[in-house]
Amino acid sequence: MGEAGALSGRLYGVGTGPGDPELLTLKALKTLQAADVVAYFAKRGNSSNARQIVAGYIRAGQAEEALHYPVTTELHRHADGYKAQIEEFYAEAAERVAAHLDAGRSVAVLSEGDPLFYGSYMHLHVRLAPRYETEVIPGITAMSGCWSAAGLPLVQGDDVLTVLPGTLEQAELVRRLGDSEGVVIMKLGRNLPKVRAALEQAGRLAGAVYVERGTMGNGSFVPVADKVDDTAPYFSLILVPGWSARP
Amino acid sequence: MGEAGALSGRLYGVGTGPGDPELLTLKALKTLQAADVVAYFAKRGNSSNARQIVAGYIRAGQAEEALHYPVTTELHRHADGYKAQIEEFYAEAAERVAAHLDAGRSVAVLSEGDPLFYGSYMHLHVRLAPRYETEVIPGITAMSGCWSAAGLPLVQGDDVLTVLPGTLEQAELVRRLGDSEGVVIMKLGRNLPKVRAALEQAGRLAGAVYVERGTMGNGSFVPVADKVDDTAPYFSLILVPGWSARP
Ligand SMILES: C[S@@+](CC[C@H](N)C(=O)[O-])C[C@H]1O[C@@H](n2cnc3c(N)ncnc32)[C@H](O)[C@@H]1O
Ligand SMILES: C[S@@+](CC[C@H](N)C(=O)[O-])C[C@H]1O[C@@H](n2cnc3c(N)ncnc32)[C@H](O)[C@@H]1O
Repeated sequence: MGEAGALSGRLYGVGTGPGDPELLTLKALKTLQAADVVAYFAKRGNSSNARQIVAGYIRAGQAEEALHYPVTTELHRHADGYKAQIEEFYAEAAERVAAHLDAGRSVAVLSEGDPLFYGSYMHLHVRLAPRYETEVIPGITAMSGCWSAAGLPLVQGDDVLTVLPGTLEQAELVRRLGDSEGVVIMKLGRNLPKVRAALEQAGRLAGAVYVERGTMGNGSFVPVADKVDDTAPYFSLILVPGWSARP
Repeated sequence: MGEAGALSGRLYGVGTGPGDPELLTLKALKTLQAADVVAYFAKRGNSSNARQIVAGYIRAGQAEEALHYPVTTELHRHADGYKAQIEEFYAEAAERVAAHLDAGRSVAVLSEGDPLFYGSYMHLHVRLAPRYETEVIPGITAMSGCWSAAGLPLVQGDDVLTVLPGTLEQAELVRRLGDSEGVVIMKLGRNLPKVRAALEQAGRLAGAVYVERGTMGNGSFVPVADKVDDTAPYFSLILVPGWSARP
C-alpha cells in the first residue's frame, strides 16, 4: 500500500496456518512459490516454526532470509533494556528486507497462523508498508485450527468471543472469563496453572478444552479438567465454548 | 468423532473463507472435490454465498444438496414461533444430510469463513457429529480476510481481542469497546448507526475501519469516520485495532 519505487519489489505477509501444511491457502502457496526471497523470524539455533510448516513447498535454490532474534534471556521482557534491544532488532530486520525490495526482489515473509493476529510479521509491516507495495495473505489462525481439530463449536448468534493472552493476571482472567460467552486463551506455557485456577474460579472449567499442537501430526486435545500436569508447550491454547446446541 | 456405521459416509464441515476463491485451503479444496455430495444452506430464491465462492471448483455432475431456509420474515427472531420453526428446519436439514451418510456417501457441508465461528454448519455439526465420523476443515474467517485486505495490524503482545455482534445494545457495545484493545464488530446491517454512535461514545471512532465485501472482487475499506451513509450490506464488518507500532 505504500508509495513504491518503480523498480522496488513487493512485500508479502504470508500466513502459513497453524501447522498442517495442507492448511495453507491456495493464494499463500502461490505467493510463497513465486517470491524471489522467503523470509522468516527464528530464534538463534532454532529453525523457524513457520518455515517448518512450508518446508515442502520451498523451491530448490529459492533465496531465504532468516531473521534471528537476539539472545535476550538475561533481560526480563518488561525491562527497558529488552525493549530497546528488540526494537533495534526489528528495525534492522526491516532494513534487511528493505534491501531486497530496493533491489527489485519480491519478499514473502512467513507468519505462523495469520500474519496480523499476534504475529511477528506485524513488526515488519508497520515499518515497511508505508514505503513499499505490500499485500497480506491471511492464514488460518491457531484458534480456528484448534477448534476445528477438536470439533468444538465456539460461538453462534449473539455470542461474544474474547481472545486472552495467558500472561494476564489471574484476577483479570477471572473477570474476563465471566464477561464473555466464548473465550480463547493463548500463550499458555508457564501460565497454565494460573489459567486453570482462573477457569475454576470463574466457574468455566467444565467445557474448557486444552489443545496441544493443533492440526500438527502429533496434535491432541483433552478437557482442561483432565489435564493434570502443569506443562504446556509453545503450541498450545485453551478453548472455552460459548455455545451448546441451540437452534 | 461419532460412532460410525461401517458403511456410512463421512461428514465434512468445509470452510470456504471470506470470498476470494484463492483463500480456500489446499485441504478444503481437496475435500470438496472428493466429496460425493456438496451441501449448503441458502435462502429460498437466493443462491448460497458459500457455494458462490467455490462455484469454480465443483466437479461437473457432482451431487448437490441445497438446504433452503424456511421463509421466516413474518416472525421476529426472538419470537417463540421463529425458534420452533428454525429448530425444526435444522433437524430436517440434518436428516437430509444423514440420509446421504447412511447410504455411504461422503458429504461436504460448505460454510462461509470458518465453519465453527458463527457458522450455520454448527447446527448440523451438533446434530450429526455424535452419530457419524466427522471432520472440520477450518477456513479463513471474515475478520482475518478483512484486516488482511485493509493491511491493518489488529492485536499484538498482551492485547485482548473481542468479537462483538452489532446486534448488542448500544450501552453494551460502549462498555465492551472500552474494555478491550482490539475489537471486531460483525453483523452490521441496520445496526450500523447504533454501532457508529457506540464507537463515538467510547472514544474509539478514530482508527476504526469499515470493511465491505473483504477479499471479494469489489471489496473496499474506509475509516468509519468517513462512512457517512447508514447502509451496510450483509458482507461488512468494523475493525478497531488495538495495536499501533510498538516494538
Ligand atoms: C505469537 S502467537 C501467534 C498466533 C498466530 N499468528 C495465529 O494466527 O494464531 C503464538 C500462540 O499461538 C498459539 N498457537 C500457535 N499455533 C498453535 C497450534 N498449532 N496449536 C495450539 N496453539 C497454537 C499458542 O497459544 C501460542 O502461544
Ligand atoms: C454468520 S457470520 C459468518 C462468519 C463466518 N463463519 C466467519 O468465519 O467469519 C456473517 C458475518 O460475517 C461477516 N462477513 C462475512 N464475510 C464477509 C466479508 N467478505 N467481508 C466483510 N464481512 C464479512 C459479516 O459481518 C456478517 O454479518
